[in-house]
Amino acid sequence: MEIIKPRTLSGFMELLPAKQIRFEKMVEILRTTYASYGFAPLDTPVIEDAQILLAKGGGETEKQIYRFTKGDSDLALRFDLTVPLAKYVALHCNDLAFPFRRFQISKVYRGERAQRGRFREFYQADIDIIGDGKLDIMNEAEIPAIIYKVFRGFGLSRFQIRVNNRKILNGFYAMLGLSEKSGEIMRTVDKLDKIGAEKVRGILLTECGLTEEQADEILKFIAIKGSNAEVLAALEGYQGRNEIFDLGLGELKAVTVNLAAFGVPEANFAVDLTIARGLDYYTGTVYETTLLDHPEIGSVCSGGRYDNLAGYYIEKQLPGVGISIGLTRLFYVLDEQGLLNPELPSAPADALVLPMGGDVAPAIAVAEAIRAEGLRVQLYCEQKKFKQKMAYANKLEVPFAILLGEDEIAEGMCSVKNMVSGEQVKLTPAEAAAHIKAELAKKSGAVILEK
Amino acid sequence: MEIIKPRTLSGFMELLPAKQIRFEKMVEILRTTYASYGFAPLDTPVIEDAQILLAKGGGETEKQIYRFTKGDSDLALRFDLTVPLAKYVALHCNDLAFPFRRFQISKVYRGERAQRGRFREFYQADIDIIGDGKLDIMNEAEIPAIIYKVFRGFGLSRFQIRVNNRKILNGFYAMLGLSEKSGEIMRTVDKLDKIGAEKVRGILLTECGLTEEQADEILKFIAIKGSNAEVLAALEGYQGRNEIFDLGLGELKAVTVNLAAFGVPEANFAVDLTIARGLDYYTGTVYETTLLDHPEIGSVCSGGRYDNLAGYYIEKQLPGVGISIGLTRLFYVLDEQGLLNPELPSAPADALVLPMGGDVAPAIAVAEAIRAEGLRVQLYCEQKKFKQKMAYANKLEVPFAILLGEDEIAEGMCSVKNMVSGEQVKLTPAEAAAHIKAELAKKSGAVILEK
Repeated sequence: MEIIKPRTLSGFMELLPAKQIRFEKMVEILRTTYASYGFAPLDTPVIEDAQILLAKGGGETEKQIYRFTKGDSDLALRFDLTVPLAKYVALHCNDLAFPFRRFQISKVYRGERAQRGRFREFYQADIDIIGDGKLDIMNEAEIPAIIYKVFRGFGLSRFQIRVNNRKILNGFYAMLGLSEKSGEIMRTVDKLDKIGAEKVRGILLTECGLTEEQADEILKFIAIKGSNAEVLAALEGYQGRNEIFDLGLGELKAVTVNLAAFGVPEANFAVDLTIARGLDYYTGTVYETTLLDHPEIGSVCSGGRYDNLAGYYIEKQLPGVGISIGLTRLFYVLDEQGLLNPELPSAPADALVLPMGGDVAPAIAVAEAIRAEGLRVQLYCEQKKFKQKMAYANKLEVPFAILLGEDEIAEGMCSVKNMVSGEQVKLTPAEAAAHIKAELAKKSGAVILEK
Repeated sequence: MEIIKPRTLSGFMELLPAKQIRFEKMVEILRTTYASYGFAPLDTPVIEDAQILLAKGGGETEKQIYRFTKGDSDLALRFDLTVPLAKYVALHCNDLAFPFRRFQISKVYRGERAQRGRFREFYQADIDIIGDGKLDIMNEAEIPAIIYKVFRGFGLSRFQIRVNNRKILNGFYAMLGLSEKSGEIMRTVDKLDKIGAEKVRGILLTECGLTEEQADEILKFIAIKGSNAEVLAALEGYQGRNEIFDLGLGELKAVTVNLAAFGVPEANFAVDLTIARGLDYYTGTVYETTLLDHPEIGSVCSGGRYDNLAGYYIEKQLPGVGISIGLTRLFYVLDEQGLLNPELPSAPADALVLPMGGDVAPAIAVAEAIRAEGLRVQLYCEQKKFKQKMAYANKLEVPFAILLGEDEIAEGMCSVKNMVSGEQVKLTPAEAAAHIKAELAKKSGAVILEK
């Protein structure tokens, strides 16, 4: 038979079991947390009609998209979860209750140039709340509060959700008579973290054509720093000069106040006037989230408020607010930084039952009894020598082996061996389950362990 | 803005929230049950190198596959989870502990002609156990025992896992001097359920070129029916005439005996000599699973033992046993048959918190308190009239609404309204959580309710 060398495409994450188990744990935390806030799970197709997926069209997206034909059909793989959501809501709007809250944790596809830490297939973990015509500002405070819960659930504490409001920026640019250039300016200001204030100023002057006065006003504005109360106080100094600005400041205050009510500590949340988000469709609150010890990786969770989710598909006005975690990249970075908790069990089973004699029926019974107590139990029935059985248990990194020899079977007992300490105790199956559970409880911890 | 009519491609399942929640429940049962037997979760890419995916090549698969180029790359979407598993095991064999047990619940893609109940994108829920060189027969008994647990977990009891062994068939055909035609004969016999004995006999005579005596021997053989003990006894009559047959009979007996030890009742398990599975690579035990009240839909869960998983990618001999549930189709059929349990809660939240006054801080606190007790709680903050708020709660089919007026807030209480009975009680948040949990516990049931 001709052998074809196996490989996985570059830019596609494929994990070994121990890491996959940790990844799944993060997905479970996302799923449980999102669901606990009343978001419905959604699962849309990976393949969509290309015309529909690219209704907005143009730009980088179109170059990166996986697009192909099958028969007469012009097809494409989704490149995010927002466009499929827009399609879904437009298509099913009569059957949905608004506000419609959904979460989706799914793979998306972008044929980017392959480079370290960049993926062509990656998970996004999104939540969105879509209103019919209107949507209360409170939703804009709840979304980052949920993200706070998720990140804490992962085991992270050194992160900051940074919040701004596009209306404040738009209003401010209007004050300077720069409304028409506001998009261009915001895209420039967005690069502040990467290129620094001086280079931003240079671009504002040369490429955007601003006066020195205007550029300085902008740099002074985005340099406003301090506690949330201090930043809000500084913003009040601009009040009364532009209606949009005042509206935005009111929204930002409401989000800030209510984030505290939702239990988000000030340490994990900051008003930051440099946040604009590159995308044009955000109209109010915008979010970015950074890991305080790893600012170099940029935002790991971003989103904001938009006024018109599905304008390409339906006449209905559907405002919303949403946020997205780039899960594959986040996992990759946390792993690279050595932050995956090595204490967290990573074996596919809590216990490995090893029959030592010929008759496996007692081993089946013991495995079933311990499984019934909620533990993950693998029965090992290969005809191997004792040493090989233990080598298997070690390679699997299973925390407990359960040995069943003739003596144990005769006594209705089993020998439970702690694979780390080597300690071995003879117990009934019920006692064994309780013992293993108690020992595992000592080790249970978060997926991430900050240093 | 030009409006593009939204649509979802035909052959792609996209569910409304209430059904998606039921589907997710089935996925959760699969995930939990598979994990409880020590299977590691696996997640391989949707896109693979086309050369690798089609290493085996030919046949129906190649016509149905989604294959396309991106830059210089010849790519394809996976059409099952077995080929990606073979690639994974071949690629990572030095890092895996054998037997390697993995489960994968993922979407696969086949561009079949669209028809009712046929999907181009569908979930498969697979388990496989891969040995290095050898694999004990006990694994072939454990696999259907796990499937039994899964189906019972769904709420099904009227199903039957049918088991046969390819060695018995191969040995039997060898006795008749028909070894070279055995593949062809088995594919014909496999159609027995669909076309009946007479037509099978006709094909055996005309297309396979058998003598009348040979055809009758075969029909007599596959007509062996009865309890498992009766079928095994009848097979013993053929013993001693062919080594392969005897080997297969020994395996079938071992599987049958141990399935009982694993707790699978005879009612859910039958030795059935007509099962052959169309695929050529099964070499021992083969499985099919039918819903007893819906034989017309064919097997909903199939698999078997194979001797060489990854021969296209690696010289190593990797025998295995696996089984696959076509989840999307199963869900579609159960829904069509009206078997989805209407009693099972299908709302995205257990409770909807409705603040009646202006200050939402107390409502946030109540929602958080009830959420902390493990319930799914949605906070509703839209500025709407009471009637509209209740209409929303009804459309969402949320079982409980929690009303927070000024009186309740002053007293530290909340009013819990049962949305089905209309009953309303005033409770503390802690009492409210306990009350809702107790009421929901009364309604908890399986996803499937057999009639």
